[in-house]
Amino acid sequence: MNEPQKIIRVAILGVSGYTGIELLGLLLKHPGVRVTYVSANNTQGAIQDLFPQFLNQTTLVCQKTDVKEAAAQCDLAFLALPHTESMNVVPSLLKAGVKVIDLSADYRLKTPKVYEKWYGQKHKDTKNLKEAVYGLPELYRQKIKKAHFIANPGCYPTATILGLAPLVSTRKDIQSIIVDAKSGVSGAGRKPVVGLLASELNGNFKAYKVLCHQHTPEIDAQISILSHHALHAHFVAHLLPITRGILNTIYVQLKNGITLNQVHQLYKKFYKMEPFVRLHGLNAQPEIKNVANTNFCDIGLAVSPDKKMVVITSAIDNLVKGASGQALQNMNIMCGFNEIEGLL
Amino acid sequence: MNEPQKIIRVAILGVSGYTGIELLGLLLKHPGVRVTYVSANNTQGAIQDLFPQFLNQTTLVCQKTDVKEAAAQCDLAFLALPHTESMNVVPSLLKAGVKVIDLSADYRLKTPKVYEKWYGQKHKDTKNLKEAVYGLPELYRQKIKKAHFIANPGCYPTATILGLAPLVSTRKDIQSIIVDAKSGVSGAGRKPVVGLLASELNGNFKAYKVLCHQHTPEIDAQISILSHHALHAHFVAHLLPITRGILNTIYVQLKNGITLNQVHQLYKKFYKMEPFVRLHGLNAQPEIKNVANTNFCDIGLAVSPDKKMVVITSAIDNLVKGASGQALQNMNIMCGFNEIEGLL
Amino acid sequence: MNEPQKIIRVAILGVSGYTGIELLGLLLKHPGVRVTYVSANNTQGAIQDLFPQFLNQTTLVCQKTDVKEAAAQCDLAFLALPHTESMNVVPSLLKAGVKVIDLSADYRLKTPKVYEKWYGQKHKDTKNLKEAVYGLPELYRQKIKKAHFIANPGCYPTATILGLAPLVSTRKDIQSIIVDAKSGVSGAGRKPVVGLLASELNGNFKAYKVLCHQHTPEIDAQISILSHHALHAHFVAHLLPITRGILNTIYVQLKNGITLNQVHQLYKKFYKMEPFVRLHGLNAQPEIKNVANTNFCDIGLAVSPDKKMVVITSAIDNLVKGASGQALQNMNIMCGFNEIEGLL
Amino acid sequence: MNEPQKIIRVAILGVSGYTGIELLGLLLKHPGVRVTYVSANNTQGAIQDLFPQFLNQTTLVCQKTDVKEAAAQCDLAFLALPHTESMNVVPSLLKAGVKVIDLSADYRLKTPKVYEKWYGQKHKDTKNLKEAVYGLPELYRQKIKKAHFIANPGCYPTATILGLAPLVSTRKDIQSIIVDAKSGVSGAGRKPVVGLLASELNGNFKAYKVLCHQHTPEIDAQISILSHHALHAHFVAHLLPITRGILNTIYVQLKNGITLNQVHQLYKKFYKMEPFVRLHGLNAQPEIKNVANTNFCDIGLAVSPDKKMVVITSAIDNLVKGASGQALQNMNIMCGFNEIEGLL
Repeated sequence: MNEPQKIIRVAILGVSGYTGIELLGLLLKHPGVRVTYVSANNTQGAIQDLFPQFLNQTTLVCQKTDVKEAAAQCDLAFLALPHTESMNVVPSLLKAGVKVIDLSADYRLKTPKVYEKWYGQKHKDTKNLKEAVYGLPELYRQKIKKAHFIANPGCYPTATILGLAPLVSTRKDIQSIIVDAKSGVSGAGRKPVVGLLASELNGNFKAYKVLCHQHTPEIDAQISILSHHALHAHFVAHLLPITRGILNTIYVQLKNGITLNQVHQLYKKFYKMEPFVRLHGLNAQPEIKNVANTNFCDIGLAVSPDKKMVVITSAIDNLVKGASGQALQNMNIMCGFNEIEGLL
Repeated sequence: MNEPQKIIRVAILGVSGYTGIELLGLLLKHPGVRVTYVSANNTQGAIQDLFPQFLNQTTLVCQKTDVKEAAAQCDLAFLALPHTESMNVVPSLLKAGVKVIDLSADYRLKTPKVYEKWYGQKHKDTKNLKEAVYGLPELYRQKIKKAHFIANPGCYPTATILGLAPLVSTRKDIQSIIVDAKSGVSGAGRKPVVGLLASELNGNFKAYKVLCHQHTPEIDAQISILSHHALHAHFVAHLLPITRGILNTIYVQLKNGITLNQVHQLYKKFYKMEPFVRLHGLNAQPEIKNVANTNFCDIGLAVSPDKKMVVITSAIDNLVKGASGQALQNMNIMCGFNEIEGLL
Repeated sequence: MNEPQKIIRVAILGVSGYTGIELLGLLLKHPGVRVTYVSANNTQGAIQDLFPQFLNQTTLVCQKTDVKEAAAQCDLAFLALPHTESMNVVPSLLKAGVKVIDLSADYRLKTPKVYEKWYGQKHKDTKNLKEAVYGLPELYRQKIKKAHFIANPGCYPTATILGLAPLVSTRKDIQSIIVDAKSGVSGAGRKPVVGLLASELNGNFKAYKVLCHQHTPEIDAQISILSHHALHAHFVAHLLPITRGILNTIYVQLKNGITLNQVHQLYKKFYKMEPFVRLHGLNAQPEIKNVANTNFCDIGLAVSPDKKMVVITSAIDNLVKGASGQALQNMNIMCGFNEIEGLL
Repeated sequence: MNEPQKIIRVAILGVSGYTGIELLGLLLKHPGVRVTYVSANNTQGAIQDLFPQFLNQTTLVCQKTDVKEAAAQCDLAFLALPHTESMNVVPSLLKAGVKVIDLSADYRLKTPKVYEKWYGQKHKDTKNLKEAVYGLPELYRQKIKKAHFIANPGCYPTATILGLAPLVSTRKDIQSIIVDAKSGVSGAGRKPVVGLLASELNGNFKAYKVLCHQHTPEIDAQISILSHHALHAHFVAHLLPITRGILNTIYVQLKNGITLNQVHQLYKKFYKMEPFVRLHGLNAQPEIKNVANTNFCDIGLAVSPDKKMVVITSAIDNLVKGASGQALQNMNIMCGFNEIEGLL
């Protein structure tokens, strides 16, 4: 490869949240990109002053978001904006010929009615909603390769769908699915609210949005596609007193039995070629610390003595494989980089 | 009440573990008891030197365990010993006329075969095994009143059984029960092993003993008694990066539907008179911080839109309601104290 | 003691902050008081709904603060208000004949100019400023007994002054004092700001307000009184990633030497009769966990080989001995209760 | 640069501790090295099974340490062994022509008597002790370039010496130095002892080895070299309830004054060309989270109003700049790699 490597110019809109900053850190180490524009709505100034982990590492300045300027300065834009804000800027970015990877939930649900029900607003850009490719590389790599616009998956859905995919795509006898999900608090964002204070969370643990979390329809949509018929997961979220990481414990009740060896073979085969999905051995379980600050999804398996209950545990870093790392993986695929570039 | 209050002399065997020390702290504040004897196998010396939270608060000295001496000095003995050790000392204590509350697992399972399967040893005291009363006051208060020997429930079983009791004792259409349990690390005891080091657990979370935790048969036995037929719970334990507290998320699949209001009424009625079980309102969920350092079991409820999945969350402090507080509550009942004495 | 015990009616203004809630928890267990009024400015509703740790434990309702109503309903008012707000309500409460214990900083500094410099506002109530008794019982017990109005000490000053008192009140050869203070995050209050989020503090530690913390003049004033001449402490605060507790490491450079035994005897004698100050043995050091949730101040000592550097470590719970517990201790003294009532 | 890059074969002896594992993670990402041998005394097996963060990332197998085999398989050996063990293996490794970087304390103190006093054993290899280069690149880069044998600095000394170097090497009026040091618990190693359990450390904080920590002579030796006369620092260590990171607060009393601007200029100039030392702006302070998982040492400055007390805060990751990252930096310098290779 004697040609000079191409350099992609990228922008981050919404750099001041946890996923934005995580993404910036990853992009600054990526040899094939140059970050040319970073912006936020309520935070302006030199990145190294605002976020001193970048002291002496970058001269970037966080601008007040200006979509035209962003479009003029980049080949690809990452949107790390709050839900319901991305759909305001996606149309003009795409029209300007910029590739877009949207980390918000705005383009993940294909049915506008479902979006409206769970996110409380009418969808304003149903045209591009149809075009958006769901950016889970393990399922949609070929589509992502050709895509100009990616809806980057949610954190809980990433861990859940990767945990379920081999089983739901092959078994026709699934009776029920329960997802008991636990997440570190960075998943709730960088918002100044009392409920997210350290004094409230140290030593604490709780369930929240029990059976009514907005990630439920995203999970249901994807597992239904995989199984070729409507599947529903009972989903309960919990808040861990840590910053990073998700561990989901997933219970799948089957009508007919399966042995641990059989499930293990199924998963092994399914994820054989995947650089970022790691299957544990027969008697081992993933731990959040093993995936923290990585783009891995680690998976463990167990089966009940009657062989009808399969328990899958899946762990990711919610800010990496659950958000910014996966966004980078999608960029790598879309732009012809090595898929693991900047991620190992 | 003009009579002088009676004073009970109590001993703690195994005071140097987390439940032993927690119990000592509670007993020192109880107006009706005098702690006369504390012992351990590998730790000797003044309590206030060994455990400086007691600095200037007690002159007790931790002895090397001597059952005869213990029996001679107390009316009631708490055993905070490791599993498989309690059954070595219970017979002589009971023979000496001492009341016993055993915090280990040795007398919780009525079937010796089941004990042997899960704890790896033949049961050595099947005679007293038959006599032991399972010390869950919310279910067995009348038996505890007359008992001389109590098998104090396990931490996970306490949170699980209290979470399930109203439902399993009334519904005949239960299809499946899943208990996704999360515990702080003090539940693993005060053992010097690498896996329990702070460096291993800070920022971490994992499942362990998936579908094979030794508390499973204890839970199954009690819920089967309550429902008058064999019930089994799929049980998965997880380790939280905190010291104290358990939160269980319990999924009960029903054949027929139930509304949230109906479940709520059922629980409200069941626990109406209980001083230590607190039912949250319709849309609230328990949190570990609200029960930490208390003897409360807090319960929250949710029901799926199709009304067939009931989700119960129950939270306790594993060292208090899950061990030492419950032991004290049992002592209060056995010895004629006010049941809440020293616990509010 | 055959007389019926008197019952004091107390109010808490500013109950919704961490010190207010801590105080409420302590007062509800105190046999000699009845909490008749609790209020806040931005939080209203049933206490057990707002703060579910009180579920089923109280029917109190948090009102919007109304000083007249408060005065009408109580014999003694605790002010757990933000700094610069207490001085707006103290005059009318005192005029109404209510005893007042102010947990804010408003009446701790005797010189209005100094107050203005450090808290950014002119003092509005210099008359009562003169009357306020500094509520550190170990130094001012006799004055507190007769007082109607108490300025409850700050958290850092409590740990610092108790750590220094025996030395500064006896040694005339002090060359310099450095206080390296570390506090849990509840000391920063229950304010929704990004810097106090769990995601910002987990796994973190930092110094803040280096050599310019507002508690410095409070410390300097008290140690100067004790030593009968002007003393200054270099004070640096740090933020620990925990909720509760302060540990101060205090370095006192002496001109002439002192042995560890001599310092130890000095402290032992000074605090001999104090129920809440605990001196560790010669080679032991306090730990925050031993004082968390207690009203104790634990102290450890060390001396350099050349005998000229004394290192004192002092630990308290910032919400208890550093705020609400000490306020209760002051109430006990002022109202003729046993000083330790409700605190052990 | 058209030549193929040379590849260095490296070994890690003592890979199973926290510094060993950290080093392995760094080395596996370094393009210029191949890890050919990893060993430990009490841990054997596939690295990815023992430490699942490496799942699918390496096929290395941890051997029982065999110095001859190690020497045969590597060009450079890292010793991540406990203190007093390194000096047993260094002579044969050096004799075999292998370059050695020793992360233990065995070769840091040039005077055998001082070593014996602080580490409790006679030094067994005084010959190589004389040859060892103290591996702090910011001070000894030119010596490291030519060295075959490096004594990698301790974690506390690294943060302390970098914090003090500009001042002690220029000011002749230093009256006293106090180092109030705080470290995460990984600094205590991966040893199964009760005092390091999560249940003991969660929510806790304490001082330890007050004025008698074994890193004191290492600090004193280096600051004395820098100042060209004997300097002593009063050193107190504290244990933070986090895994990684050290923050030192250093108090330097000067006889004559200095302004904040002057100190800042002094530090700016001193560290101008250093890739891993980052000086904060005039009113900012380092935080552990900004250096965690990096090789940076961040420094903040403050001066008292009388200009005679300088407060320096310095933060590092104890496992990276305080151990394995610095070892890698030394390797880069010794072996002709870019100094920052594998570290940014």
